[in-house]
Amino acid sequence: MNAVSSSQVNITDVVLRDGHQSLIATRLRTEDMLPACAKLDAIGYHSLEVWGGATFDACVRFLKEDPWERLRAFKDAMPNTPLQMLLRGQNLLGYRHYADDVVERFVAKSADNGVDVFRVFDALNDLRNLETAMRAVKASGKHAQGTICYTVSPVHTLAMYVDQAKRLVDMGADSIAIKDMAGLLTPYATGELVAALVEAVDVPVHLHAHATSGLAPMCHLKAVEAGCRHIDTCISAFAGGTSHPSTEAMVAAFQGTDYDSGLDLEALKEIGDYFRGVRQKYAAFESEFTREDVSVQINQVPGGMMSNLANQLKEQNALSKIRDVFNEIPRVRADLGYPPLVTPTSQIVGTQAVMNVLTGERYKTITNEVKRYLQGGYGHPPAPVDDDVRRQAIGNSPVEEGRPADRLNPEMARLTKDIGELAEGEEDVLTYAMFSELGRDYLQGRRDGSLVSEPIPAPDAGDANRPVTE
Amino acid sequence: MNAVSSSQVNITDVVLRDGHQSLIATRLRTEDMLPACAKLDAIGYHSLEVWGGATFDACVRFLKEDPWERLRAFKDAMPNTPLQMLLRGQNLLGYRHYADDVVERFVAKSADNGVDVFRVFDALNDLRNLETAMRAVKASGKHAQGTICYTVSPVHTLAMYVDQAKRLVDMGADSIAIKDMAGLLTPYATGELVAALVEAVDVPVHLHAHATSGLAPMCHLKAVEAGCRHIDTCISAFAGGTSHPSTEAMVAAFQGTDYDSGLDLEALKEIGDYFRGVRQKYAAFESEFTREDVSVQINQVPGGMMSNLANQLKEQNALSKIRDVFNEIPRVRADLGYPPLVTPTSQIVGTQAVMNVLTGERYKTITNEVKRYLQGGYGHPPAPVDDDVRRQAIGNSPVEEGRPADRLNPEMARLTKDIGELAEGEEDVLTYAMFSELGRDYLQGRRDGSLVSEPIPAPDAGDANRPVTE
Ligand SMILES: [Co+2]
Ligand SMILES: [Co+2]
Repeated sequence: MNAVSSSQVNITDVVLRDGHQSLIATRLRTEDMLPACAKLDAIGYHSLEVWGGATFDACVRFLKEDPWERLRAFKDAMPNTPLQMLLRGQNLLGYRHYADDVVERFVAKSADNGVDVFRVFDALNDLRNLETAMRAVKASGKHAQGTICYTVSPVHTLAMYVDQAKRLVDMGADSIAIKDMAGLLTPYATGELVAALVEAVDVPVHLHAHATSGLAPMCHLKAVEAGCRHIDTCISAFAGGTSHPSTEAMVAAFQGTDYDSGLDLEALKEIGDYFRGVRQKYAAFESEFTREDVSVQINQVPGGMMSNLANQLKEQNALSKIRDVFNEIPRVRADLGYPPLVTPTSQIVGTQAVMNVLTGERYKTITNEVKRYLQGGYGHPPAPVDDDVRRQAIGNSPVEEGRPADRLNPEMARLTKDIGELAEGEEDVLTYAMFSELGRDYLQGRRDGSLVSEPIPAPDAGDANRPVTE
Repeated sequence: MNAVSSSQVNITDVVLRDGHQSLIATRLRTEDMLPACAKLDAIGYHSLEVWGGATFDACVRFLKEDPWERLRAFKDAMPNTPLQMLLRGQNLLGYRHYADDVVERFVAKSADNGVDVFRVFDALNDLRNLETAMRAVKASGKHAQGTICYTVSPVHTLAMYVDQAKRLVDMGADSIAIKDMAGLLTPYATGELVAALVEAVDVPVHLHAHATSGLAPMCHLKAVEAGCRHIDTCISAFAGGTSHPSTEAMVAAFQGTDYDSGLDLEALKEIGDYFRGVRQKYAAFESEFTREDVSVQINQVPGGMMSNLANQLKEQNALSKIRDVFNEIPRVRADLGYPPLVTPTSQIVGTQAVMNVLTGERYKTITNEVKRYLQGGYGHPPAPVDDDVRRQAIGNSPVEEGRPADRLNPEMARLTKDIGELAEGEEDVLTYAMFSELGRDYLQGRRDGSLVSEPIPAPDAGDANRPVTE
């Protein structure tokens, strides 16, 4: 993070994390990334997003790579550029709330192994789920980026986002990220939001806008004009669609203006050419659901969620009900206090909407996840939930108002004991902590020398089963 | 063209012409377009670009369709939307200058058969090459759109473009189009150019920006903010890359703002879904050279031209010289008075640059096309040509200063006689006029009932040989 003129745009390239997560099911292997690292490191990026999100899971589950080793390899190969990760707050890189001691050790070891910038978010924007992680980042001396998950609802006003940004700064955030995972932002809404945030806080505002609906390059432009100086882009070979605007295009857009990023287009083009070759190797993981699709601008349902629901209905021979389900989603979301639709809330809302349609009676059947959600198991919803739905779901059982992790006892000692000598270091204990049996199997396989990474299917093997989790 | 509020953005969709010309080598057949026409006609577009450019050639050469019949079918199927064509000034839809009587009859018959809006351009921006066509459009009572071919050079200043726009209005232009065939425009350059044109002329300014370099959606946005109210887009299935920004994305970008186009996203999405299926049928015509590529922003050489040159050099085992050729192109272009690089000037400049590099001595060999160009055979170059190069090329032979078509005698009588009874109407004479032997063969085949359209190759048959001409 060099000294820059006040109007210069700073670029974070996400090709090593979000780019391949969005377009080829997070399958990119370290061996295909390392050959580009010297060139990436020489570009002069503000930072490179290289770790976290679904990559940790994909390493352990599919690639049989040690994610910690990947991180160290990146740090060796890119010593001059701040390396960035995406962290799901109290969920870290797993799928449940972890005890605070796990969060603290996970952040400390991530910092030790090479992460310089931590982007921390919570699906509900319940900042209590970010507290421990943010504090741990600050304790490690690294950059803590507090995140706002962007969504659209009657309660998600500019004032609400401004308030959240201020509270993040109070928690020690060194910068604020707007995270538009679904492509909901429009150019003029972006301009207003950025202007409000830039006015409200003294730290830099970053924009992470998925290009799903085709609007993200324009959102970047209006964000920059409104005072945003940090945008996320992806080298062209892994840009567009459900990924991000291409780095080359955004650099070219601002070249020769006061916003000029100063990055060299020819050097970027060489990196693009390299990754274009790489992408062909992973053609089997391409999916029709990663293309540009304006649907999310019509009904606010993210593209990945729509395709999941279509598959779910198809399996039950009920695809003809898909319109009803799409119409039911906003109603369920309202009942649940307007959660942003991102993992895990997209699954929670979507599955309940399917139930409500297929049973022919709303909330006749209620999923356990909705019950847990209504009990406060994920934190505070953005707005009050519907009282009748809550009573129907959990009767008079109490709603936990406290921070979910406050109900968890320390776990590191137990985890360390459980995994025993299979762990060669604390990193391994944390891998086990994330995925339990999957983690153990991985560590056992490593001990036995029996790890075999998932083969890369022939290009015409059809759409991959893909995690859609950030 | 309905009455609209002063800030409303008007959309011209190019899917039936430029979309498939840019992405699948102009191969889309009428039978695959007609099923969408009722829906297209119901959208409320400002206009639909459906004819001209390379489509006339592709109909006769590859598809063995009567282009006039296609036009009439469109008119029948889309009675409520103005239909638009792209016309190469005195070159009409062929590859040479035609006599004025051919131009007059071609325009008259195009109007008779259904064209409502004529976008007329000349590769050198020599307006004398537009005069006859513009006058003929006015005589037919249709909309005459005067076009500025956008390029970047020391002489292509805002003042030059403003002057051109004013002269087009003086010629009777009902609107002005900025045509950025190569993707050279950047957002802020667009804003400045549009602002200058809107200030200078009272007719609407249209923007036709190819998305080659990934900047076109942002160019549209800045154009609209600068006062442009008419943009060209393409339904998403044939958008992006060397085509245009997607209609859906641009409609979504302005939705709910003062610029709102008023078009219905769900109706557009249905059309996109239809054409997505159609595009798969033509997969064999997809090419790696139609993807987003920032190169043109680095060296101002259009993408299509770069790939043609690479092929040319490969055939002569001289691919290693490609850097030298790219460096030579701007020098040749300067010597020739900075022509915009579009058919035919892109071929003229490119081939001479290859010669200059491969012979080891600049202008040791000079192509006939360069000689013809320097003799004034294409019209006035935008700036004076290099005197030494001209002397070396054509010695002391005179430079024609007059309008190229002034040297041509009327042709219709001769053409009508030549083609004889093979022509069932004046339209057929004009088809013959465009392509001579190819036209005759087509008409003969129609008479004999022996027309067979080019088969659509299997999807993995590799890149198509594609015309790159507008
Ligand atoms: Co993301
Ligand atoms: Co065009």
